[in-house]
Amino acid sequence: MSTPPKYPKTSLNTVKRIANRGKYDYSTIHSLLNSSPIIHVSFNDPHSPFPITLPMIGCTGNFEDQDADPNTSAQDVYVHGYVSSRLMKLGSSSKSSEHGKGEGEQEEGFPLSISTAEIQGLVLALSPNHHSLNYTSTLIMGYATPVTRESEKLYAMQRITNNLLPGRWENSRQPPLASEMSSTSILRVRVVSASAKVRTGGPSEDRVDLGNDELRRRVWTGVVPTWRVWGEAVKAEECQVVGEEQEKGIEAWRVGENMRGRGSAFRAAVEGDGGEKE
Amino acid sequence: MSTPPKYPKTSLNTVKRIANRGKYDYSTIHSLLNSSPIIHVSFNDPHSPFPITLPMIGCTGNFEDQDADPNTSAQDVYVHGYVSSRLMKLGSSSKSSEHGKGEGEQEEGFPLSISTAEIQGLVLALSPNHHSLNYTSTLIMGYATPVTRESEKLYAMQRITNNLLPGRWENSRQPPLASEMSSTSILRVRVVSASAKVRTGGPSEDRVDLGNDELRRRVWTGVVPTWRVWGEAVKAEECQVVGEEQEKGIEAWRVGENMRGRGSAFRAAVEGDGGEKE
Repeated sequence: MSTPPKYPKTSLNTVKRIANRGKYDYSTIHSLLNSSPIIHVSFNDPHSPFPITLPMIGCTGNFEDQDADPNTSAQDVYVHGYVSSRLMKLGSSSKSSEHGKGEGEQEEGFPLSISTAEIQGLVLALSPNHHSLNYTSTLIMGYATPVTRESEKLYAMQRITNNLLPGRWENSRQPPLASEMSSTSILRVRVVSASAKVRTGGPSEDRVDLGNDELRRRVWTGVVPTWRVWGEAVKAEECQVVGEEQEKGIEAWRVGENMRGRGSAFRAAVEGDGGEKE
Repeated sequence: MSTPPKYPKTSLNTVKRIANRGKYDYSTIHSLLNSSPIIHVSFNDPHSPFPITLPMIGCTGNFEDQDADPNTSAQDVYVHGYVSSRLMKLGSSSKSSEHGKGEGEQEEGFPLSISTAEIQGLVLALSPNHHSLNYTSTLIMGYATPVTRESEKLYAMQRITNNLLPGRWENSRQPPLASEMSSTSILRVRVVSASAKVRTGGPSEDRVDLGNDELRRRVWTGVVPTWRVWGEAVKAEECQVVGEEQEKGIEAWRVGENMRGRGSAFRAAVEGDGGEKE
């Protein structure tokens, strides 16, 4: 028995513009999601024509098979955040009765999309039209339901906390109080479809521009790499911590993340992406 | 005559959760949008229950009053990107006939939302439930139409290019070729409503936790500030530029942006945000 390593390409998720940048494998999509400290969650209010998009935190998980590797196995997405229960009821009644029944079953929950985008470089070309960004992005679509089982909620809270900073759950005060359990909203998103898009490399130029020596001597071209950097931690006034172990752990984590981000952005600047560019 | 400095608070844009973090003034919203190298554009496909959210580039502008200050005046948003014309037709016929006619007029265009989110710090509290992020986010809703007038398209292309890197339009090959003008899609979004949300400061703790001296000696609390950093520019292989003026300009820009980002993240770490936190 093997779980499929990719999301099937369907009309929902197929990357149409510059199709060679599209990625569908679990590993790329799940790791991009899990490395985004903030995710964009989009959903509809039936009383407005405009999608609502809110920043939230979240990560992948599989409550039924907690040791499953997110790089190779199907995952749900757990989102820490609140969507009005009024909207969730309206959404599921008006939308999922019409759509999403491709596999012959009635989907449960509220349709939403999760997106991430991180830029890795500003790509400067000879002409403005060939300017671009190196970036990674994901779009994950699924049906959300509030997590009500206490054991699953605890699992999701622990994963989301440790996804922000490894080991933080164990290093802070837990288990949560009963009041914290009831005031915390966690959504479980059953993923229906997903894709990622990745652009790397230097500028792709117009052929005529490349043949114009005057232009090539006049206009600087290349990539300005960019990444997220984490600065020295600022201790809270109320903090009375004894010993340096935790602070050293945070320091090691941020230095590692900074090196990883820098390395990834510089690699993206010099790599080709194997095809069509803009 | 004065243009209003804020977006009116309506049911569309009022920040409901932790309302004191909501901002409605042009200055905050427009400057957050214009300082985001990538923006998330969300819209609906009538054949799918899931909003589509794509990363694009864009910035504010006002073609009719090009010298108007975005901090104090109404602005459109120009988005460089492509939304299928099939979707745009479906969207405007199925949605704007029902909605968005609050001011007694038929809205033209395709309803979409633009969102940004940047994090400025990981906020580490005594208990996982009080962990948070310092962040800025925006949500801008409006009706999009493709820009067809050549003069307006040129204006938007110049603004979007220079918003990514000041002066870049003038330093690269322009005007665009006729083929570039026709292959470039620019959307103008007439803004209907908008809001921003800003979280700053250190952790907000549970009162019982704060009274627990053992806990305060055990758990490190505070903020790990974070910002976007720009690395040393990587010259393209094809680049034959003579002189260092442009490279020095890019270097000065990135060093300035890095200082600005760092300063802003550290200020956010120690500032209060004047109210309720989580």
